[in-house]
Amino acid sequence: MSPSTQEQAEIAARVRDSFARQSIMATLGAEVAAVRPGEVEIVLLFSDRILQQHGFIHAGAVATIADSACGYAALTVMPRDAAVLTTEFKINLLSPAKGDRLRAVGRVIRSGKTLVVTLGEVFAETAGASKQIAMITATMMVVSTGSGLRD
Amino acid sequence: MSPSTQEQAEIAARVRDSFARQSIMATLGAEVAAVRPGEVEIVLLFSDRILQQHGFIHAGAVATIADSACGYAALTVMPRDAAVLTTEFKINLLSPAKGDRLRAVGRVIRSGKTLVVTLGEVFAETAGASKQIAMITATMMVVSTGSGLRD
Amino acid sequence: MSPSTQEQAEIAARVRDSFARQSIMATLGAEVAAVRPGEVEIVLLFSDRILQQHGFIHAGAVATIADSACGYAALTVMPRDAAVLTTEFKINLLSPAKGDRLRAVGRVIRSGKTLVVTLGEVFAETAGASKQIAMITATMMVVSTGSGLRD
Amino acid sequence: MSPSTQEQAEIAARVRDSFARQSIMATLGAEVAAVRPGEVEIVLLFSDRILQQHGFIHAGAVATIADSACGYAALTVMPRDAAVLTTEFKINLLSPAKGDRLRAVGRVIRSGKTLVVTLGEVFAETAGASKQIAMITATMMVVSTGSGLRD
Repeated sequence: MSPSTQEQAEIAARVRDSFARQSIMATLGAEVAAVRPGEVEIVLLFSDRILQQHGFIHAGAVATIADSACGYAALTVMPRDAAVLTTEFKINLLSPAKGDRLRAVGRVIRSGKTLVVTLGEVFAETAGASKQIAMITATMMVVSTGSGLRD
Repeated sequence: MSPSTQEQAEIAARVRDSFARQSIMATLGAEVAAVRPGEVEIVLLFSDRILQQHGFIHAGAVATIADSACGYAALTVMPRDAAVLTTEFKINLLSPAKGDRLRAVGRVIRSGKTLVVTLGEVFAETAGASKQIAMITATMMVVSTGSGLRD
Repeated sequence: MSPSTQEQAEIAARVRDSFARQSIMATLGAEVAAVRPGEVEIVLLFSDRILQQHGFIHAGAVATIADSACGYAALTVMPRDAAVLTTEFKINLLSPAKGDRLRAVGRVIRSGKTLVVTLGEVFAETAGASKQIAMITATMMVVSTGSGLRD
Repeated sequence: MSPSTQEQAEIAARVRDSFARQSIMATLGAEVAAVRPGEVEIVLLFSDRILQQHGFIHAGAVATIADSACGYAALTVMPRDAAVLTTEFKINLLSPAKGDRLRAVGRVIRSGKTLVVTLGEVFAETAGASKQIAMITATMMVVSTGSGLRD
């Protein structure tokens, strides 16, 4: 059963509220671009504050938005009283990360009671052209409210 | 054959020079703590600019210093005319990243002509106590000067 | 430029010849089901010789066919004088592996001169129904003939 | 608190009993070599039934014993009424797998209530010499008896 329009709006608000509390995103220059059931997009603008030694965007910054895109994709399918934590991720860096901005798209592949498994892609966008530069797989944990954590 | 004292000093200078060009490190608040042949340590100070939504240090920041510790550990065993690029890494997040600072230690496990495989650990340090909070395995590529990249 | 029909037939023959030399496949009960440019399918029949302790197909058997599907997908895009070796893979096990047979589908995501990055899915098939039970990402190395290896 | 001698014997018996139910191990030619709290060793004898196309032991066979060494290392620290399932693993293949036999050593890095994270190494042994040929990190799930699974 797909979520209703109102439920979708609530899910999107929940993701955006939680994302707004991730201070690293403002530090790096990242924003939520889209929230759909089971899928979240995050965009990171190129800036000279997030680079590695050759002038590409650092793999860690790529991983940061890829991880959050996957984590929030997972949150969209979790119960309302759950919080999300990353337990592991693996990222393949396909090409140097350069361009006007990066777009990370995270998708839920398998939604379980305890774990949600996700797959994400990161694209470099330059003047309208788009090229995949990374692929991530990540396992997210469904953390109950009893933990004191909220999302 | 172990590198001589002078070679070790040159290797350490090479790592520190390259690290200084990684603008993301100043943005996040990370510094090189130690360089040894096949092993590099990076320290990240806790600050309210690098957090996720529950107040822990973001997994992406943990991954950033873990990746660079592994990458620079790999660089210490590469030829002088090579540059280093991460091709992939996988990180297991063992506990929430909180404390006064994080310390990432990267080590070379296997040094090949084309690829260098590394293993890293990240510790949270608080008032003298230390706890492992992440484990990373990463593959680094030996990039020849012909690419135009330098380290 | 897509390969011609004749080139496709040569690629398929090359994959099937190399696969026939993988003795573990006969031992486990696996066969090549399809070869397309950039994509290979391998099928593993359920048998009581490949199980783990709860009666599911062992994760290692799942990984074996997933790895080979990805490796041979990579081989389809490699030069004729190259051989393929797996440098790393990561597999997420989404559900217990049970059913009449497993089908692993490997696809090339990024084809480089030295490394080919792949993504694979494994499905359990039972009486016509199909369910994804694993996801793999793998890095394959393009090994030159100079190594003495052939595929 | 370390387990008593009697508890250690019970843990070892539990691992060996469960391993004996993994039919794939007899098919491949693998045996438990050692069980210690938090650490398990599995040995795989070279045979011409488990090879890839170049005559090396197939990465899938390497992964099979590495996964089980990690899984049973995890089982040694789990409650008596729990069963173990692999949720994910990543393996780096450091050198071709050839020799008289392989030895996989799995160790617990972090033991949680729901997940146990492990690190494993695989060595090729030939005429007394030993060389590391693979490294694995794996996440194991603690499955309650309510699931119907036993170990």
